[in-house]
Amino acid sequence: MLRKLKTIKPLYYLLLGFPLAVLGSLLRWNPVFTFASACVGLVPLAGLIGEATESLAAVTGPRIGGLLNATLGNAAELIITIVAIKAGYLELVKASITGSIIGNLLLVMGFSLLLGGLKNGTQRFSRAHAATNATMLVLAVVALSVPSLFNHSLSGASLPGTITEAMSLGVAVVMIAVYLLGLFASLRSKDSALAQAAPAEAPRWPPRASVLVLVLATAAVVWLSEILVHEVDAVMKASGLSEFFLGIILIPIIGNVAEHLVAAQVAIKNKVELSLEISLGSSLQIALFVAPVLVFVSLLLGQKLNLVFNQFELLAVTTAVIVAALVSSDGETNWLEGVQLLAVYLILAVAFFFLPK
Amino acid sequence: MLRKLKTIKPLYYLLLGFPLAVLGSLLRWNPVFTFASACVGLVPLAGLIGEATESLAAVTGPRIGGLLNATLGNAAELIITIVAIKAGYLELVKASITGSIIGNLLLVMGFSLLLGGLKNGTQRFSRAHAATNATMLVLAVVALSVPSLFNHSLSGASLPGTITEAMSLGVAVVMIAVYLLGLFASLRSKDSALAQAAPAEAPRWPPRASVLVLVLATAAVVWLSEILVHEVDAVMKASGLSEFFLGIILIPIIGNVAEHLVAAQVAIKNKVELSLEISLGSSLQIALFVAPVLVFVSLLLGQKLNLVFNQFELLAVTTAVIVAALVSSDGETNWLEGVQLLAVYLILAVAFFFLPK
Amino acid sequence: MLRKLKTIKPLYYLLLGFPLAVLGSLLRWNPVFTFASACVGLVPLAGLIGEATESLAAVTGPRIGGLLNATLGNAAELIITIVAIKAGYLELVKASITGSIIGNLLLVMGFSLLLGGLKNGTQRFSRAHAATNATMLVLAVVALSVPSLFNHSLSGASLPGTITEAMSLGVAVVMIAVYLLGLFASLRSKDSALAQAAPAEAPRWPPRASVLVLVLATAAVVWLSEILVHEVDAVMKASGLSEFFLGIILIPIIGNVAEHLVAAQVAIKNKVELSLEISLGSSLQIALFVAPVLVFVSLLLGQKLNLVFNQFELLAVTTAVIVAALVSSDGETNWLEGVQLLAVYLILAVAFFFLPK
Repeated sequence: MLRKLKTIKPLYYLLLGFPLAVLGSLLRWNPVFTFASACVGLVPLAGLIGEATESLAAVTGPRIGGLLNATLGNAAELIITIVAIKAGYLELVKASITGSIIGNLLLVMGFSLLLGGLKNGTQRFSRAHAATNATMLVLAVVALSVPSLFNHSLSGASLPGTITEAMSLGVAVVMIAVYLLGLFASLRSKDSALAQAAPAEAPRWPPRASVLVLVLATAAVVWLSEILVHEVDAVMKASGLSEFFLGIILIPIIGNVAEHLVAAQVAIKNKVELSLEISLGSSLQIALFVAPVLVFVSLLLGQKLNLVFNQFELLAVTTAVIVAALVSSDGETNWLEGVQLLAVYLILAVAFFFLPK
Repeated sequence: MLRKLKTIKPLYYLLLGFPLAVLGSLLRWNPVFTFASACVGLVPLAGLIGEATESLAAVTGPRIGGLLNATLGNAAELIITIVAIKAGYLELVKASITGSIIGNLLLVMGFSLLLGGLKNGTQRFSRAHAATNATMLVLAVVALSVPSLFNHSLSGASLPGTITEAMSLGVAVVMIAVYLLGLFASLRSKDSALAQAAPAEAPRWPPRASVLVLVLATAAVVWLSEILVHEVDAVMKASGLSEFFLGIILIPIIGNVAEHLVAAQVAIKNKVELSLEISLGSSLQIALFVAPVLVFVSLLLGQKLNLVFNQFELLAVTTAVIVAALVSSDGETNWLEGVQLLAVYLILAVAFFFLPK
Repeated sequence: MLRKLKTIKPLYYLLLGFPLAVLGSLLRWNPVFTFASACVGLVPLAGLIGEATESLAAVTGPRIGGLLNATLGNAAELIITIVAIKAGYLELVKASITGSIIGNLLLVMGFSLLLGGLKNGTQRFSRAHAATNATMLVLAVVALSVPSLFNHSLSGASLPGTITEAMSLGVAVVMIAVYLLGLFASLRSKDSALAQAAPAEAPRWPPRASVLVLVLATAAVVWLSEILVHEVDAVMKASGLSEFFLGIILIPIIGNVAEHLVAAQVAIKNKVELSLEISLGSSLQIALFVAPVLVFVSLLLGQKLNLVFNQFELLAVTTAVIVAALVSSDGETNWLEGVQLLAVYLILAVAFFFLPK
């Protein structure tokens, strides 16, 4: 979703992380170093996939382009989580879904509004599109909460696994359908911020080059994801951080660095509507599309990823959605609202940090 | 509340369900068939009570008419639930209260906005009245949640029955008082959608005929309710559905078919404010008036219906109210918002379906 | 925060409670009488502290004045709770924090809107400032909920005390930082209701007299608080009320009588924006400033006050914030919204009353 308005050159130096991670993995260097290198290398690769997708989208026209963005927009996160599912880190995957939603809504949006507000004072935007997004976000919270909350009856008993699996699949179908209908509606509407911004955007690369970049970057992301997931156990032992903390705070930050930079750049240029679109759109995509798709993908991989989140994840997502909806629904933002979003993220991060393993 | 703007003729064929149910009950036919016939027969009878009430209301003037609508507007549902209380199906009754609220907010409003939006594009309306309704709905959720959530302390212990009974009675008094004050306020206000629509409406039947229809239809509803409730056990056994599922999904659909049709008709005619009024008003009436009245009625019948709902019912009502409030609060609606409401209903229905008995 | 627009003379007769409480405490009169006298005496003293603060603020200019109001605005409540912490009544203190928030949002705002609406019909105000306050309130709920909800995992186990203590301290730092940034933003903004109202306000007393009143009233509040807290045990035994009920209903009413009167007076004069500012501002101050400060103060006093509230307190605060945010967010209020707020308070009070000790 128009993540790479301008190339952010310095990011490319981080590509150095790729060879370091590969070497570290082959030569069995310190796992924490290898893990960190893989994280660093993933940042520009995620950016490259996004940029190639948009170059392609500029050529294919808005319809197919919208679909491309919708499916490939969070490709790096999708690949990392699929590799993690294959390796059986289901808690890590669910935590990283939650973490990616709250990261986009609180960190990305928070920094953007803070910087944009400090630069431009109060920023105004049309409420109509933000209202639709807010309703979609609440719908996503409902979809993620229902199987989770139905799983824990007050008597303390949990539902049998087959029932939560069936519930998750049923809910996942509804989520994907609503996401696609929402996509269809926003592609048809003429007044969307994206539709207005898109024509100005010339393709950065010719189609062939785009496809090549896409294939290479995707392959590299797969490789780095394998390395990253392979070192998770060693990193947890060495750092004392829990699988849950890695998933909910660390992994999402890696996947969202590019969104961060673009959303903040755009907000500083006083295009607050587009900035909100990036952070809200990305969370929505993860909540309503990536999460349910992973439920089906996990079945193919012989794992059973359900949509039963723990209470901390639900609390974090619900909180983030309510605060983000409030902030984005009144048609104007200022630096203080950015501070408020960041404060909620900090409060949650403090709580997650102290949560015993 | 102005449910029958136009007669919906084809519905009257469903009156055939009445003799079939009576015969089935007397001749001990298959209970599922008898039950289904009673359901079918109740649909037009609920419509007739509504229409007779409005014919009377057109004669008596807005004040008494408003009171008539307020007390008889959900008469069919009230009768079914009273008969069910007498037979001791308290879980069914509580589930059907919840189901009726979510049915009106999600199914009725969802279909209306979907059809209205497909026909008319974006539909606009005044936010003022919708905002008051949204606050009332949240108040209703609070009223229904407080006794329920206070009942389950985190230690897992429940409160003694006498205390929840006392709490429910106290809360019920406050609910009825607020409902009546709200009714008083809306009858006094000149700018309500109902007040504007009402004068245009000529009484369909003369007063005498209205009273006769009211008495006959009410008697028939009582009869069918007795048959329906009598077959509940046999139907649960035969169909494998739980008392909870029957109460939360099936019973409310029967009682709300008329609202469905009128709200959708009105929305298609681009009168979205009136359409919202029907679905929001009907939920409010059930939550703030029917539910607390049933608490007192149950005492007269020697049963103790309290306002302690289970977590699934609370989750469903809270969810429905939040999404409906969001959708109806921004002053405009489109088909996608209809889809969003229906999606929430579907997600909840999937979860209720898989919930073990 | 501009609590004492006009002197409310009759309140000063209540100063009689001070000598009665002192005598009662020395001569060991009936504890309930002594307790009641202390309560009565605290009402005008809280008012005097507020008035002296504002007289000082009028001289020092808006910046320092704002800080004075921010720190001394709820001085009486702060003193009572500190004395109660010293005596180890931590449940009472936490309940009174919650009670003060819901009292301001539901009782004070409810009565103000009811009386203002009955006098002036629909009252309109600018939504912008109310929206910022609403977001701050939601942030406060998040801050108060996170340690509480993280403490109770679904398995029923609680976190060890050291972890909740660490979490509470971390969250408290974030809360105070956000509160101060919010204060900074509102002092800088030219269009705040307070900034407009303030210039009209002449200092009531010369600075020296203000400082003297401040010192004397504070000393008297400390004395009365000691007496009040000393009699808590005896009063609980004599009245049958729980520590929780005293804390959540009774103590906050004493501390907020002055706010009540001023907010209602202002609303009757059709200055609804200022009236909302008083009730919203006071709750915000308690939630985001008094509560976290008490966490640190308790450490100095050798007690460990954490931010883990029980489910009833959380439910009450969450409910109050949502309803107050809804009511204050649409830019207009009427008497019915006042009734709705009071109804929520009544429902909660009924539930708290029936809650077993």
